[in-house]
Amino acid sequence: MHTGMATEPVLYLGIDGGGSKCRARVTGAGREGVGVAGPANPFQNLTQSCESIQQAAELALADAGLPADALGKLVAGAGLAGVNIPSVREQLLAWRHPFSALYLTDDIQIAFLGAHGGEEGAVIVAGTGSVGYSSLNGGLSIGAHGFPFADKGSGAWLGLKALEAALLALDDLGPATALLPALEEELQARGLDLVGAMAGAGQQDYGRLAPRVLAVAEAGDAVAVAIVREGVDYLEQVAKRFLARGHSHFCLLGGLAARLLPWLEEKTLQCLQPPRGQADEGALLYARQCHGGVITRESGRGC
Amino acid sequence: MHTGMATEPVLYLGIDGGGSKCRARVTGAGREGVGVAGPANPFQNLTQSCESIQQAAELALADAGLPADALGKLVAGAGLAGVNIPSVREQLLAWRHPFSALYLTDDIQIAFLGAHGGEEGAVIVAGTGSVGYSSLNGGLSIGAHGFPFADKGSGAWLGLKALEAALLALDDLGPATALLPALEEELQARGLDLVGAMAGAGQQDYGRLAPRVLAVAEAGDAVAVAIVREGVDYLEQVAKRFLARGHSHFCLLGGLAARLLPWLEEKTLQCLQPPRGQADEGALLYARQCHGGVITRESGRGC
Repeated sequence: MHTGMATEPVLYLGIDGGGSKCRARVTGAGREGVGVAGPANPFQNLTQSCESIQQAAELALADAGLPADALGKLVAGAGLAGVNIPSVREQLLAWRHPFSALYLTDDIQIAFLGAHGGEEGAVIVAGTGSVGYSSLNGGLSIGAHGFPFADKGSGAWLGLKALEAALLALDDLGPATALLPALEEELQARGLDLVGAMAGAGQQDYGRLAPRVLAVAEAGDAVAVAIVREGVDYLEQVAKRFLARGHSHFCLLGGLAARLLPWLEEKTLQCLQPPRGQADEGALLYARQCHGGVITRESGRGC
Repeated sequence: MHTGMATEPVLYLGIDGGGSKCRARVTGAGREGVGVAGPANPFQNLTQSCESIQQAAELALADAGLPADALGKLVAGAGLAGVNIPSVREQLLAWRHPFSALYLTDDIQIAFLGAHGGEEGAVIVAGTGSVGYSSLNGGLSIGAHGFPFADKGSGAWLGLKALEAALLALDDLGPATALLPALEEELQARGLDLVGAMAGAGQQDYGRLAPRVLAVAEAGDAVAVAIVREGVDYLEQVAKRFLARGHSHFCLLGGLAARLLPWLEEKTLQCLQPPRGQADEGALLYARQCHGGVITRESGRGC
C-alpha cells in the first residue's frame, strides 16, 4: 500500500528540521508545495520532531493541492540535527513514519546539497550551532558537536561567552564591558538577576543573545570584539582546512552568515560563493538521490 | 504547637543541602545526631529538596535518640545553593515546612560559618561549583553564579573546558591532548560518541570529570595544565581580593581543595588556614544566631 505503482509519478518530500521550526517541500506530478510546522530537533525532543515532520508534510501536500492520502506515497528525505549520534539515529529509525520511504541524514548534509545542487563543494553554517562540510575525498564534517561544549563561532557560543564575560565584569574579576548592560536590557534583568533569567536555558536561548553580542562588538567594545574575533577565527580555520582540501570556494550559510561577513579576512571573502538553493531543496535532492540509487545505503552518509 | 515553651531546651537543626546529598545535624537537650538524605538543590528540584531536608532531619532526630514528633520543635537553619536567586528564595519561603522555625541562607554562608565558627574570615569553595565569601565590611560574595556560564575553577568548569579541548583535538582544530583518551575512558565512549555521552549533561555530570582532568594535568599534558592553570588563576584572583579587604588568611574548602593545593602560588599557600568545622555545623550556628537575634531579619544575609 505504501509503495506507488511503477506507472505513477513519484512524489518527493524534503524535510529541513531544526530547533525552532520544520520546513517541508513536496514536489512531483507537476506540483510543488511548502509547509512549515514546529520544532524538529530529535536530539531535544523525539516525539515532537516526528509530529512536526508529519504536520509539515501534510501542510506541504495541501499547499501543492495534493490529497492528504498522498502522504503514504511520499519518498521523503529528512535532514535533522543530531542524527549522527548513534542513539538518536536508532530512535528515529524505529519511528513508524507514514511515508512510502524515509531517508535520514543530518542538517549539514541537506544544507550542503541545497547550496551546491548535488555538485562537489564546501559549506560552513553559522546559526544557533556551527558546522562545516566538504564533499571532497569521501566528505569531511567539522564541528556541530553541540552545546555548551562545542560549536565555536555559533550564535549559542557567542551568547554563552558574552554572559560569562558580563558576569566576570559584574564581579569585577574581568574587564568592564558594554555586554553587561546589553544583556541586562535583552533579558530584562539587572545584575545577578541575569543568572536567574538564564537558569536552565538551552542552546536556542543562548543563540537568541547573539544579535546583541554582535551589536556590542560592532560598536567597538573590546571584550565583545575579542569574543567575536575568537569565534570568527575558528570559522576561518575551518574554511582554510576546506581550501587546503582542494575547494576554491565555499558557501557561508545560517542565520549569522550576513552579520559575520564584515569580520572575515579579505582572503576569506574572496572565496565565498552564494548558495544555489535552500536546505529544504537539499533534502528533496537527497530523497531523489537515495531513491534513485545515486546514494546507496552502503556508500551514502546516513542513507 | 510549633513553638517550644520557655522552660524547654531549644532543639536546633542545621541543614547542608547540595546537588548530591543533604546533611542534617540536630543538637540540644544534651543530644546530637546526624542524618543524610538525597539531593537538596532547590534550583534544580524544589519538591525533592523539601523532601530531602525533612527526611535528613528525621534521620538526624532518630540518630540523636529523640522522638519523631520533636520535628515540630526544631529551630532550623538551612544553607542551600540558589537561595540568593529571588525566584528560588520565594518558592522556598512558601514551603509549609514541618519545623518550629526555618532560617534560610545560601550554601556559602554556612560553609563560612562552619569554617570560622562565627568569627570574621574568608573562604573559597572549589567543588562542583566555585564561590568565595569574605565577612568583612558587611560581607562580599564572589562567584557561584552557576553552570555553564560561570564558576571558573570549579569541577564542572574543569570538566566543560576539558570536553571542549578534547573535541577540538578530535577535529584537529586544537592541539592534541591526553584529555581525549582520558575522557573517552571515563565516559566509556570513543571519538564523537563523547558528544552523545554528555548530551543533556548537567553541572554534576561535568563535575564528575574533574578528577580525570586534574590527573591528566598532573601528568604534564600541556592543554590540561593550561585549563587547570586558568581555573586556579581565577581562584587566586578571588583570594587576592579577599587579602586586599583585610584578611590575613582564608580557608580553601570543597571537594577539589586538596587536589588544587599543589597548583597554588607559594604566597597563596602561606595564607591558607584549616577550617574549624563543616558546613552542617555552620548551618547549626546560623540557626542559633537567627533564633538568638545575633543575626536579624533586617541585617542578616537571608535570615
